[in-house]
Amino acid sequence: MSRVVVGPNSRIDTEATVGYQYADNVGSTHIGADARIRAGTRIYADVELGAHVTTGHDALIREHTTVGDDVGIGTQSVLDGAVVVGDEVSIQTGAYIPPETEVGDRVFIGPHAVLTNDPFPLRQRGALHGPTLHDGVSIGANATILPGVTVGEDAFVGAGAVVTEDVPPATLAIGVPATYHPLPTELDGENVIA
Amino acid sequence: MSRVVVGPNSRIDTEATVGYQYADNVGSTHIGADARIRAGTRIYADVELGAHVTTGHDALIREHTTVGDDVGIGTQSVLDGAVVVGDEVSIQTGAYIPPETEVGDRVFIGPHAVLTNDPFPLRQRGALHGPTLHDGVSIGANATILPGVTVGEDAFVGAGAVVTEDVPPATLAIGVPATYHPLPTELDGENVIA
Amino acid sequence: MSRVVVGPNSRIDTEATVGYQYADNVGSTHIGADARIRAGTRIYADVELGAHVTTGHDALIREHTTVGDDVGIGTQSVLDGAVVVGDEVSIQTGAYIPPETEVGDRVFIGPHAVLTNDPFPLRQRGALHGPTLHDGVSIGANATILPGVTVGEDAFVGAGAVVTEDVPPATLAIGVPATYHPLPTELDGENVIA
Repeated sequence: MSRVVVGPNSRIDTEATVGYQYADNVGSTHIGADARIRAGTRIYADVELGAHVTTGHDALIREHTTVGDDVGIGTQSVLDGAVVVGDEVSIQTGAYIPPETEVGDRVFIGPHAVLTNDPFPLRQRGALHGPTLHDGVSIGANATILPGVTVGEDAFVGAGAVVTEDVPPATLAIGVPATYHPLPTELDGENVIA
Repeated sequence: MSRVVVGPNSRIDTEATVGYQYADNVGSTHIGADARIRAGTRIYADVELGAHVTTGHDALIREHTTVGDDVGIGTQSVLDGAVVVGDEVSIQTGAYIPPETEVGDRVFIGPHAVLTNDPFPLRQRGALHGPTLHDGVSIGANATILPGVTVGEDAFVGAGAVVTEDVPPATLAIGVPATYHPLPTELDGENVIA
Repeated sequence: MSRVVVGPNSRIDTEATVGYQYADNVGSTHIGADARIRAGTRIYADVELGAHVTTGHDALIREHTTVGDDVGIGTQSVLDGAVVVGDEVSIQTGAYIPPETEVGDRVFIGPHAVLTNDPFPLRQRGALHGPTLHDGVSIGANATILPGVTVGEDAFVGAGAVVTEDVPPATLAIGVPATYHPLPTELDGENVIA
């Protein structure tokens, strides 16, 4: 195991793994204050988590990932390395976030939502680009976001939508492929985490 | 660990967790006769499982959940607390069932099907309402059911459908968003578990 | 545990399980040379893996499954028994492959893609038939493939598509239900694994 630094008042279940040594030479792992890391979750070396981060079970947070304060990382969700997550973010059960993804502040990523980073898998070789989710975005359950897509501030992606192009700010994206609409009254506002 | 009561002829792999103490003060866990709980599965305290319940690996059953008899709970499926499941139910691999969901008897929930309970995640605060699946319902693989939706008796939701409104009994729901049709001959009947 | 044979230069994390004894009488497990099996992954007895097979975490490979050489089996992916996988295949995080599925060479199965094998779950009893993926197929993230469907050589299934009928070779399948189109220039070619 690599070097692990854990902030005050943090609780880590004995069945969780912190500082998984994914290569011969790795850096340290930092977990902020008041964390709650539940059994089965694996956090690699070279990960930095802010204060008040909680995880469910069997989540995976791979190397070179940075997570802000007040973030919930759900059961079986995967931050697959080289991911940046802001503050006050809720990542639900089974969400998948690939390498080279940026997630802003006050973002919601619903259960089993899948972000992608490879436009032509196995067919063309090229750089991988995950999506960029700006502040205040909500991604519905089981939605799919195509590689390199930017979702604008306060936009809302409906459950099961497949988003193939950039979503303007404060826009509702629904359907397969997603079409864009003004936010209905009940979704017109800003995200606030509990 | 909390108090655990296990019925006769039950087998629990040593790598499974039963009675996970999710809070300082918790109740007991009851597992009926002839259970088979496989390695990696976690069952919280304050859970009651009937007779002949089997689980795959890495399933999660959280607190205040009640499951009937003859139920299969697949690998990596999540019953995320405050869930009620009837008898003779088949929950397939990776299915997600949120809090405040009711599942009747003889229900099938396909692999990676996602039920949801929050209509306006992070955008409005309000009570969470999961779907209600009446007796004999089948939910296809990777389908998504929106919050508060009721799926009527013997209805069949197709694979990948996104169900946004109540489904009448004995109805086929397919597409995104789902549209409703009479059951075709090969689906016209009642669910029978093996 | 059952009998396990591991090839030279293979590394298996101590927290991985190889040769899970799923029944009273089981056969042996064979893992080829240069394997990398990561913590939390479970490989049943009666499984044969070729050379240069790697797994992520918490993957499940059940009995009577055969996997070729140079295959990556992602975190939380499930090969649910009686699966045949060829050479140079990439199975991404959370993909689900049911029993009675055949996967050719140089195939990509995207994150959370779901293959199915039961056309009338709980409603009719009958033989289960998973899909057949011919050589060079790519399946996009979160796509769903219906039971018994054949996806032809070098075909490309888009992210989130629901494929209900056979896909001709070198064809693009997108949408719900999927419609078929000629491959665009940037996808017209053959799969090559890194």
